[in-house]
Amino acid sequence: MRFSDETLARHNANPLYRTTGIRLHSVFDGQAVSSLAPESSVCWPTPGQPHGGIVFTVMDTTMAFAALSNGEEGSGSATVDCSIQYTAPARQAPFQCQARTVSRTGRTAFVRAELVDAQGAVVALAQGTFRLFAPRAAAA
Amino acid sequence: MRFSDETLARHNANPLYRTTGIRLHSVFDGQAVSSLAPESSVCWPTPGQPHGGIVFTVMDTTMAFAALSNGEEGSGSATVDCSIQYTAPARQAPFQCQARTVSRTGRTAFVRAELVDAQGAVVALAQGTFRLFAPRAAAA
Amino acid sequence: MRFSDETLARHNANPLYRTTGIRLHSVFDGQAVSSLAPESSVCWPTPGQPHGGIVFTVMDTTMAFAALSNGEEGSGSATVDCSIQYTAPARQAPFQCQARTVSRTGRTAFVRAELVDAQGAVVALAQGTFRLFAPRAAAA
Amino acid sequence: MRFSDETLARHNANPLYRTTGIRLHSVFDGQAVSSLAPESSVCWPTPGQPHGGIVFTVMDTTMAFAALSNGEEGSGSATVDCSIQYTAPARQAPFQCQARTVSRTGRTAFVRAELVDAQGAVVALAQGTFRLFAPRAAAA
Repeated sequence: MRFSDETLARHNANPLYRTTGIRLHSVFDGQAVSSLAPESSVCWPTPGQPHGGIVFTVMDTTMAFAALSNGEEGSGSATVDCSIQYTAPARQAPFQCQARTVSRTGRTAFVRAELVDAQGAVVALAQGTFRLFAPRAAAA
Repeated sequence: MRFSDETLARHNANPLYRTTGIRLHSVFDGQAVSSLAPESSVCWPTPGQPHGGIVFTVMDTTMAFAALSNGEEGSGSATVDCSIQYTAPARQAPFQCQARTVSRTGRTAFVRAELVDAQGAVVALAQGTFRLFAPRAAAA
Repeated sequence: MRFSDETLARHNANPLYRTTGIRLHSVFDGQAVSSLAPESSVCWPTPGQPHGGIVFTVMDTTMAFAALSNGEEGSGSATVDCSIQYTAPARQAPFQCQARTVSRTGRTAFVRAELVDAQGAVVALAQGTFRLFAPRAAAA
Repeated sequence: MRFSDETLARHNANPLYRTTGIRLHSVFDGQAVSSLAPESSVCWPTPGQPHGGIVFTVMDTTMAFAALSNGEEGSGSATVDCSIQYTAPARQAPFQCQARTVSRTGRTAFVRAELVDAQGAVVALAQGTFRLFAPRAAAA
């Protein structure tokens, strides 16, 4: 499943992405790509650098979409757990996140992601376990 | 070291906390306590529930302060890595986070945290590794 | 469910425990306690200190039993993922491991464990996600 | 730095590797490759399948050598923490482990590893933080 431009635009209008500066670029075949151009309100305590929690947020949501792209249209997902390593200071915005589903067994997907800065240096690594849910009859 | 009310108030005025709904309540002896009354802009994709990245953010920042409370006044900290488990849906705001330094060797602190909902149910567990930095001569 | 002395003895006879020096002491109500008196063959590269993989092994198996004690007799479990932090060198054998199920939703259990040395110092922290399986009609 | 055949042979003679069935194949430029042909004594509770702790052990030691290969000859390393995901049952021995240093800052190395079975399927993913130590004047 590949997300259409319309679907991407709909997701990109969500308030969390707008508040933090996240943007989803593509979702397809167990993968997803996004970017983070952090809003100044989430750059604390170091001006110009997104908080580690925001770095986590962009990676988590991108991994969730990577996991979802393996499911049926309209499926949902939940993060079971995730581990993140901060490999370098996140100094050079914007950042790009690439996530890839490594394995899926039943409704559980194992996904990895990297975040690189504008120079291409890896600033964070994550690996997470996601649980997929079937589409609901009356999803919003 | 225990943070004074003034120091807490100064930290609580930061833009990340205001944008997300985080508030630091106490920091002392390797421990820290905070709360999350999530702003609606970070409650996505499920209205009323903070995104998992925001759950991570409150735990990460609370653990960082727990680690810092063992250092000298004015020290800084950086998250080296962190693992989080989402043990239950985060439905019942406000949430309380308690963080505790389990061990410290040199400039590395190992910290654990729990997030409970308004009913006292554990909604997330985290354990992180933090690196402490000495106070700078000319810190902002 | 509490494991009887007979059940504990049966588990303690397994080849992995004998090869490494693990012993299960009690399993009850979502908790488990074990010890590690490491065999010299698993103390490498530092003589007298168990390899980090063996430290992980005792924590993983103890957490699995903690998770299992919430299930039906004869249930099985599998580790989905686990995160470990080595908080201090594992110098003072024997070690004791305590594991506790923090939360269980459906067939997924979230478990935490600590390993302390003979002096009571924490040498490792772990948190893992476990999947429980129903007893099989014809289990070996 | 690339390990010579002699150095590899010396490491492969260690008791932990012999007890478990681990063998180091190559170490070079921040990377390492090893295999696990698990001894029956570590295949428990499922005959023919290595315990999850042994799966962790081969990945941890391979990541440590990957980290070390960036240091000076004779350096030591210690695992600070590590996260592992079990993506599929480890049924088809022998297994191969590939580890790669993603980033290194000062004496801290961030390393990732994959374990694949004889069919090439990924059975486990790990990411760890390692601390490097300078060679000692009088190392044993």
